[in-house]
Amino acid sequence: MIKTDILIIGAGPTGLFTVFEAGLLKLKCHLIDALPQPGGQCSEIYPKKPIYDIPAYPEILAGDLVDKLMEQIKPFEPGFTLGERAETLEKQEDGSFIVTTNKGTEHHASVVVIAGGLGSFEPRKPLISNIGNFEDKGVSYIIKNPEVFRNKKVVIAGGGDSALDWAIFLTDVASEVALVHRRNEFRGALDSVEKARELAKLGKIQLYTEAEVSEIHGKEEVQAVVIKYNDKQRDKSYVETDFFIPLFGLSPKLGPIGDWGLEIEKNAIKVNNARDYQTNIPGVFAIGDVNTYEGKLKLILSGFHEAAVMCQFAYQIINPNKRYVMKYTTVGGVQGFDGTKKEAKKEVVQSIV
Amino acid sequence: MIKTDILIIGAGPTGLFTVFEAGLLKLKCHLIDALPQPGGQCSEIYPKKPIYDIPAYPEILAGDLVDKLMEQIKPFEPGFTLGERAETLEKQEDGSFIVTTNKGTEHHASVVVIAGGLGSFEPRKPLISNIGNFEDKGVSYIIKNPEVFRNKKVVIAGGGDSALDWAIFLTDVASEVALVHRRNEFRGALDSVEKARELAKLGKIQLYTEAEVSEIHGKEEVQAVVIKYNDKQRDKSYVETDFFIPLFGLSPKLGPIGDWGLEIEKNAIKVNNARDYQTNIPGVFAIGDVNTYEGKLKLILSGFHEAAVMCQFAYQIINPNKRYVMKYTTVGGVQGFDGTKKEAKKEVVQSIV
Ligand SMILES: Cc1cc2nc3c(=O)[nH]c(=O)nc-3n(C[C@H](O)[C@H](O)[C@H](O)COP(=O)(O)OP(=O)(O)OC[C@H]3O[C@@H](n4cnc5c(N)ncnc54)[C@H](O)[C@@H]3O)c2cc1C
Ligand SMILES: Cc1cc2nc3c(=O)[nH]c(=O)nc-3n(C[C@H](O)[C@H](O)[C@H](O)COP(=O)(O)OP(=O)(O)OC[C@H]3O[C@@H](n4cnc5c(N)ncnc54)[C@H](O)[C@@H]3O)c2cc1C
Repeated sequence: MIKTDILIIGAGPTGLFTVFEAGLLKLKCHLIDALPQPGGQCSEIYPKKPIYDIPAYPEILAGDLVDKLMEQIKPFEPGFTLGERAETLEKQEDGSFIVTTNKGTEHHASVVVIAGGLGSFEPRKPLISNIGNFEDKGVSYIIKNPEVFRNKKVVIAGGGDSALDWAIFLTDVASEVALVHRRNEFRGALDSVEKARELAKLGKIQLYTEAEVSEIHGKEEVQAVVIKYNDKQRDKSYVETDFFIPLFGLSPKLGPIGDWGLEIEKNAIKVNNARDYQTNIPGVFAIGDVNTYEGKLKLILSGFHEAAVMCQFAYQIINPNKRYVMKYTTVGGVQGFDGTKKEAKKEVVQSIV
Repeated sequence: MIKTDILIIGAGPTGLFTVFEAGLLKLKCHLIDALPQPGGQCSEIYPKKPIYDIPAYPEILAGDLVDKLMEQIKPFEPGFTLGERAETLEKQEDGSFIVTTNKGTEHHASVVVIAGGLGSFEPRKPLISNIGNFEDKGVSYIIKNPEVFRNKKVVIAGGGDSALDWAIFLTDVASEVALVHRRNEFRGALDSVEKARELAKLGKIQLYTEAEVSEIHGKEEVQAVVIKYNDKQRDKSYVETDFFIPLFGLSPKLGPIGDWGLEIEKNAIKVNNARDYQTNIPGVFAIGDVNTYEGKLKLILSGFHEAAVMCQFAYQIINPNKRYVMKYTTVGGVQGFDGTKKEAKKEVVQSIV
């Protein structure tokens, strides 16, 4: 059982910044995210695109924003349960919570913060009847650790950035890389398209276009896939492979959180925005894109503010008998759980005569 | 009469960022500030100190934060009335407002946003009975344009950073620089203290310590000051000068805003934080340090969020019949009033065969 002060569901920008605000209050955080990496929409949907409305950043790439947040929270040593979806929330007699993931990992915390954005990112799956039998047995919808493909054969399906980028990347790792797409045209950053084109010419990526994987074969694990073509003229191809990786994008689903007894409106969680961003379940807060209230803006900067306010109230729940006096970071410095301390240079008082 | 969509009182970080959020909605802004430069507390009190809790900035100097905000709002061409205090607010029959400063400058706007922080920064004045007669006639409490001191004699009083820094700076501008301080010890950044010490040794700064200016002489304008010493042993000094600049710090005062009929609580303006940060006067909003509500945090990041929310509601007041659909800056780009346009690189759709 993982134990922490504040359990954060969702490691998007809002969840990440919560670690910092909690850390200033000496509260420890652990984050759960269905994605294999932190950053939420910024990392998953548009890491290479610029954002222009982060205050004091005239321009920052979404991926760089996530890197900066990770750097900022590092001193507070957050824990991460990645690639798992928070599935159940159970309130304990003492008011604390146990949250369990779809893989059975249990987390115990005094306060739960849902920073789940548009929901848990779930892969769009191809319609192949027996695909469920091969999940984690050769079929992966997301790539957590590319090393598992070292010297293996992989078949990737998809026509967007992530299919292109992984196909390119895996040419250096896997023994064989095939890329299957229903059209001839791919949609992605210009340099990815060009690079893939080059690797295809060199025979390092085996291309199957205007085609799709229609069958998966294998005893326990994936052994081969069958590729059929849009024009029925061409015969199906039987391609031996160790892995089949459909990368059709992830789409967010509020999912299990919808069944936790929270007040839901417009697919988002109602909160008390006049006060603390608490939900109808005391001790459970909702911040960032996942919450709703009159005038709500689904903007990153709003998640940041909501995190700061929410942490003050979480502090009171966790330390009912302590009075917290806020100090500016400039004045009090930032003391990490890792022993680091940042602080402003002190002024000197000196005679100049 | 200066005309604008949104008149912002206070050019601290909150007021500045409001220009950006309003600009995204195609609303023009003008800012009034009692200080000669934008940036509010960040510029006036701690420009060279680091802030650690600006989201995605593990560390940024307060002065650099202001520079970044100025860069971010540049495309939206804000107007500035600096060095003047907003004194009166008059509601017009059509619901718009006229705000007049202590120097008589009039501003007309559909919406007024008070982003006045802890209040208008007002100088602490030395207790010299006739000092009022010489204000703007040789006595300055803030320095707007150092060029007015070119080849003139100046006497600066004070023992902090700003007295030190201006004394140092003016050695290159003024013909004579004197620095008067009640103690021997100065309080400031180490390098300022060292630099001042050096200049004093070279005779470029004439030092009077354990001393204070007790009299101002002159017909219309300042012609000399009298300096008296803590130990009554030493005789008073009579020092001829063109300017007397007491830099004893500025202290913020809510000031005239307190008389505008706004609901005030704890020296701050009550707002509807559950919705739009509007005050009890429709069309007048209050954001940043100047407002109050349950759970209010006087943090820069909160001002940013409040600005974004407030602008959406200001839009509805200014454009009652238009429906605004928010677009992410990443998706819609940022179109400045100066003709500039920033946008993300488009994806390509290309065959890689
Ligand atoms: C193309 C695009 C452009 C954008 N441009 C801008 C912009 O210019 N400015 C701006 O401010 N915003 C922009 N946004 C919106 C911005 O990305 C979101 O506001 C922000 O990501 C919200 O952060 P969050 O942390 O609240 O949620 P998210 O980023 O959505 O992160 C939530 C995380 O929670 C996880 N999660 C949810 N439920 C569970 C569960 N049960 N178990 C485990 N994990 C779970 C999800 O997997 C996800 O990683 C843009 C969005 C997109 C898609
Ligand atoms: C030493 C110090 C360290 C700090 N450290 C941090 C930190 O680490 N993190 C953080 O988030 N915050 C910190 N703060 C607080 C932060 O600076 C404020 O929250 C922030 O400046 C508020 O911005 P604002 O724009 O709302 O108001 P302000 O910065 O106060 O600006 C308000 C402006 O309005 C002007 N004004 C007011 N009334 C009038 C009028 N009638 N006419 C004309 N002009 C008027 C004032 O002159 C002023 O320039 C710190 C503050 C100090 C003093």
